[in-house]
Amino acid sequence: MRSEELGETLLPKRLALPIFASDPLSSVAYATEEILLVLTVGGTAFLYLTPWIAAGVVLLMAVVVTSYRQVVRAYPSGGGSYEVVTTNLGPNAGLVVAASLLVDYVMTVAVSVASGVDNIISAFPSISAARVPMAVGFVVLLSAMNLRGVREAGRAFAAPTYLFIFGIVLMIVTGFVKMLFGHTPVASSAQYAVIPVDHKDTLAGLGLLMLCLRAFASGCTALTGVESISNGVPAFRKPKSKNAATTMSAMGITAVLMFVGITALALIAKVHKTDDTCRLANYPGDCHTTSQPTVIAQLASSIFGGDHSVLFYFIQAVTALVLILAANTAFNGFPLLSSILAQHRYLPRQLHTRGDRLAFSNGIIALAVVNIALLVAYKADVTNLIHLYILGVFTSFTLSQIGMVKHWNRLLATETDTKVRGSAKRSRIINGFGAGFTGLVLVIVMITKFTEGAWLAVVAAVLLFGMMRGIRKHYDAVAEELAVEDLKAESVRPSKVHAIVLVSTLHKPTLRALGYAQAFRPDILEAVTVAVEKDSTQDLQEKWAESEIQVPLKVLDSPFREITKPVVGYVRSIRRTSPREAVAVFIPEYVVGHWWEHLLHNQSALWLKSRLLFTPGVMVISVPWQLTSSTRADRPARRAPGSVRRGEPAGNLDPTEPEKAVHSGSA
Amino acid sequence: MRSEELGETLLPKRLALPIFASDPLSSVAYATEEILLVLTVGGTAFLYLTPWIAAGVVLLMAVVVTSYRQVVRAYPSGGGSYEVVTTNLGPNAGLVVAASLLVDYVMTVAVSVASGVDNIISAFPSISAARVPMAVGFVVLLSAMNLRGVREAGRAFAAPTYLFIFGIVLMIVTGFVKMLFGHTPVASSAQYAVIPVDHKDTLAGLGLLMLCLRAFASGCTALTGVESISNGVPAFRKPKSKNAATTMSAMGITAVLMFVGITALALIAKVHKTDDTCRLANYPGDCHTTSQPTVIAQLASSIFGGDHSVLFYFIQAVTALVLILAANTAFNGFPLLSSILAQHRYLPRQLHTRGDRLAFSNGIIALAVVNIALLVAYKADVTNLIHLYILGVFTSFTLSQIGMVKHWNRLLATETDTKVRGSAKRSRIINGFGAGFTGLVLVIVMITKFTEGAWLAVVAAVLLFGMMRGIRKHYDAVAEELAVEDLKAESVRPSKVHAIVLVSTLHKPTLRALGYAQAFRPDILEAVTVAVEKDSTQDLQEKWAESEIQVPLKVLDSPFREITKPVVGYVRSIRRTSPREAVAVFIPEYVVGHWWEHLLHNQSALWLKSRLLFTPGVMVISVPWQLTSSTRADRPARRAPGSVRRGEPAGNLDPTEPEKAVHSGSA
Repeated sequence: MRSEELGETLLPKRLALPIFASDPLSSVAYATEEILLVLTVGGTAFLYLTPWIAAGVVLLMAVVVTSYRQVVRAYPSGGGSYEVVTTNLGPNAGLVVAASLLVDYVMTVAVSVASGVDNIISAFPSISAARVPMAVGFVVLLSAMNLRGVREAGRAFAAPTYLFIFGIVLMIVTGFVKMLFGHTPVASSAQYAVIPVDHKDTLAGLGLLMLCLRAFASGCTALTGVESISNGVPAFRKPKSKNAATTMSAMGITAVLMFVGITALALIAKVHKTDDTCRLANYPGDCHTTSQPTVIAQLASSIFGGDHSVLFYFIQAVTALVLILAANTAFNGFPLLSSILAQHRYLPRQLHTRGDRLAFSNGIIALAVVNIALLVAYKADVTNLIHLYILGVFTSFTLSQIGMVKHWNRLLATETDTKVRGSAKRSRIINGFGAGFTGLVLVIVMITKFTEGAWLAVVAAVLLFGMMRGIRKHYDAVAEELAVEDLKAESVRPSKVHAIVLVSTLHKPTLRALGYAQAFRPDILEAVTVAVEKDSTQDLQEKWAESEIQVPLKVLDSPFREITKPVVGYVRSIRRTSPREAVAVFIPEYVVGHWWEHLLHNQSALWLKSRLLFTPGVMVISVPWQLTSSTRADRPARRAPGSVRRGEPAGNLDPTEPEKAVHSGSA
Repeated sequence: MRSEELGETLLPKRLALPIFASDPLSSVAYATEEILLVLTVGGTAFLYLTPWIAAGVVLLMAVVVTSYRQVVRAYPSGGGSYEVVTTNLGPNAGLVVAASLLVDYVMTVAVSVASGVDNIISAFPSISAARVPMAVGFVVLLSAMNLRGVREAGRAFAAPTYLFIFGIVLMIVTGFVKMLFGHTPVASSAQYAVIPVDHKDTLAGLGLLMLCLRAFASGCTALTGVESISNGVPAFRKPKSKNAATTMSAMGITAVLMFVGITALALIAKVHKTDDTCRLANYPGDCHTTSQPTVIAQLASSIFGGDHSVLFYFIQAVTALVLILAANTAFNGFPLLSSILAQHRYLPRQLHTRGDRLAFSNGIIALAVVNIALLVAYKADVTNLIHLYILGVFTSFTLSQIGMVKHWNRLLATETDTKVRGSAKRSRIINGFGAGFTGLVLVIVMITKFTEGAWLAVVAAVLLFGMMRGIRKHYDAVAEELAVEDLKAESVRPSKVHAIVLVSTLHKPTLRALGYAQAFRPDILEAVTVAVEKDSTQDLQEKWAESEIQVPLKVLDSPFREITKPVVGYVRSIRRTSPREAVAVFIPEYVVGHWWEHLLHNQSALWLKSRLLFTPGVMVISVPWQLTSSTRADRPARRAPGSVRRGEPAGNLDPTEPEKAVHSGSA
């Protein structure tokens, strides 16, 4: 029954495509634009190069998709590039990929949100002043949603991607059909001549080559997010690998069709888009503050009959929506990768177990904070943010393809079946070509983008790499220190147990702690109180004497209203007198339900407990008393972000026992 | 020996004066100015009223100081106004005073820092644009100092106050001596005619009265901080009350002399200071952005020979310093009052015990955050901030004087000794007059300042009042729930103890926990592991079988990598089967030294522990294993802010056992 339950939560291809592909597909919303922005530095002189650059991007897309179909088949566990590289090229190369991917997730949010906002502003130019606040608002919204544990799966999340595909395809088809009937679409910006930068329209030789390479590097943003399916194989229905590979191809074909269609129409409709509005001759408004509509917006407007047609708003809405959805995928992918890294002890271990929501929440908040900083610093400008983005993408592409080549080499070294060998050899050629091509692109991106901002991504990745190495080193050192050398020698049992029950007043939690301590029948048992307030101590002593409690009460002096020091001092004095005895300190606590109640109950017991833990030979025993308010704290369990991608089931395992928000105070 | 130690840390009068009086004495740096700012709305027409208003302030100062000498004698425990009012007028009136005082502490920081920065800018006008950042910087500096636990006492803290007194007295004497020789000082602003606001120079009747009252209310800022000595009586040497009363008088006389001197010289030197620089005719620079030098700066400049004389810089330096020091007193007074309120269960209990640094740190951070917000919102403008300040001061003055009247009434009701009765009757007259006078001032302040910002202080005080009442109510409810009705019935001892040792791997902490559990000889003992990772669970089972550990190992299933749920479920199943058994869960933990190490070690054990505390019939037993890094965590104890004022000793009680920074992880 449980595995059936699991099966139900796995994703059919029709749901997996939108969930994993919103990120790569949404990239086509800005890829064409980025190519044009580079080429128009030479006015309209070099726009004729666009088809060639687009062809390069399409070829690259085909190579990368084919290569990742191999990854999905060979590594179905969902580790993606990180797993491929770690297995085949060793842990350090794997860590480089991991660091790049972590940076990528951050940039996915920033770029997607910025582009989404750009498309909203293209529809409603009057709110262009609110660009940065809107972008920040979306990041806050996404993190709030993920902190509350909104599930990623389901139709609500699938619909925008399909609507986006439908809208863009409709636009492309309509555009070409209109052309057939002689109504060639004309973009609103076609009327403005483009002023070239510093005679860049006369570029030739090396200068022209560099321009092409820069345009190509910018166009490569179409490939961001392509690897996401390879991280989600466990979430697919069986046969997992085959379904994932099919979805991969479907995604690739859709992306290529949309990218080619948009690029072709942008050229046909003569979209003139520049990085600096002042280079558009006679552009209305103050060119220093006016932004240009996105390429998608210009096409939709020219094809669907102007800036106020219903279909224009529809295209802008679904484009913005799919981009925001793409940003959301990072909020799900980030904890997933963190969890795998934590399993390998490169990140704090608590990120591994699903149970710890705090860790996930911290991850989400960190992602949000970094993104808000980026969006504010770069004024939510897509082009500037993209410079930081693609370097990491191609680092992981290249390394994973090299890893795959090694994978096939290793397989071929032992495999004898000629059919398998043949298939492996074909795969090796594919991945070898992929490695060469993506490696070349990596070099191109490095050369053309480094000084434009990519250096910052490199610095961030290097810092992450160093941090993860350090964490692993620490965990290894602790494991070594804790390792058992001689089981017999290490298993010494204390000769006696000296039990102490800490008492502040004679209330129910105290009585329970006394009862539990007595049930243990320790060798020595005494109650201990710290004389913080003279009056209340005397009062306690009197009540104690009147009662028929058999346990003697010891009073510790504390001239300066301190609790911790006298108790720790007393425990140490016991250990000094009889070093082979273990001291068991019973602490009566009471458990409350609301977080604010927690703030009101004595934190100094928490401090005392942690101080006692530093003392060798001590056990710290919490005896809880549940206040009635503690039962009010029932709260349904939340899902951790990324659980859909991991193929984990929905809801609680045991619906009769909801998780509780837990806060404990002490008596 | 310990009491000798205590005696040494108590303050002689020569140190107590500067420590407690920096706040009231520094008020004279802005009191004269605030009177002038109000009167100059009528141009120079009403400056002739200044001596009368100043006389009112001096009379008020005499009354308040005399009244507080009574408080110091009757309530030597340092509770100050709060104690007087609570004892005599009941807890609700006491809470009103407490809320007012808490608001006051906040405003002391804001006003003093703003005025300090004002005096720095008067010396270096070129940095006037940095007013707000400088003010914020000082707040950050003060909180950092207090977070690090810098001691308040000592010569470094006493010197600025004496230097300030010396500087101001020197300036006043020099000014008058120069006058005797015919060189009457002339302020730099004397040359600018003051343009009255809307014909306010022709005010008469009620309008003129209101102007006088507003000027008087503003001048009353000279009294802020006067009560501080009454909160610090325990820090004085014996005879405490007498010494405190003497210091009180010395402070009052000094304050009056300085205030009168400054006010007289300001009139003689014709200091023209307006709330709006544009009302100074022909003032150089853009009047919208140029600020005027402080009254102190104008006097120092005119008396000591210009803006670049050494003595001018000296006066500005000591004035700024004493103001910053006054702000620091709030960082010490705030935790002190909080501690008393916590003792009365109006604030979280952890604020009461000195040991809890976290609580003090939170208080300091809260104080800093609120002040930064205020300084930014009010652009560090002294005058605007002062509107929020004096209402709270006079609320506590008035209520405490009424309380004192009640105190003497109560005493006179039983006292028969005629000498004592006579003295009490005289005291009653003093306090009765004080109550009437300060009550009148309270009404004046309320009328003249409410709409100018004082309403915000009222709102804050009301919120604090409500919060404190709520906290007290909660504590009372918990105490009632925990109270023992029937000692016999409540002291039930469990029939058996079922002990569980949680095991993840077979390392040293596990072996220690097993040994300790065995030493307790529980009725049932078993080791339990959660099968999170299949491989490692199998590995553990094999090792366990090989070893000669006598305790059986039970494996709990966990299909979703969760630890908490299976363990809690198992514990509950034991309780269901045998409700009279207590379940003891032993958790092996390891203790690390650095805070960052703490982040790396499994927080999920912390979560498990708090979840277990919700389960009735359970004991949670931490068995610590100290890693070598844990010994590196030695750190000397820090003093809590306000400890000097409380009369607590310096340093550690036991210098051989320094406090440690404690962080614990779990295995």
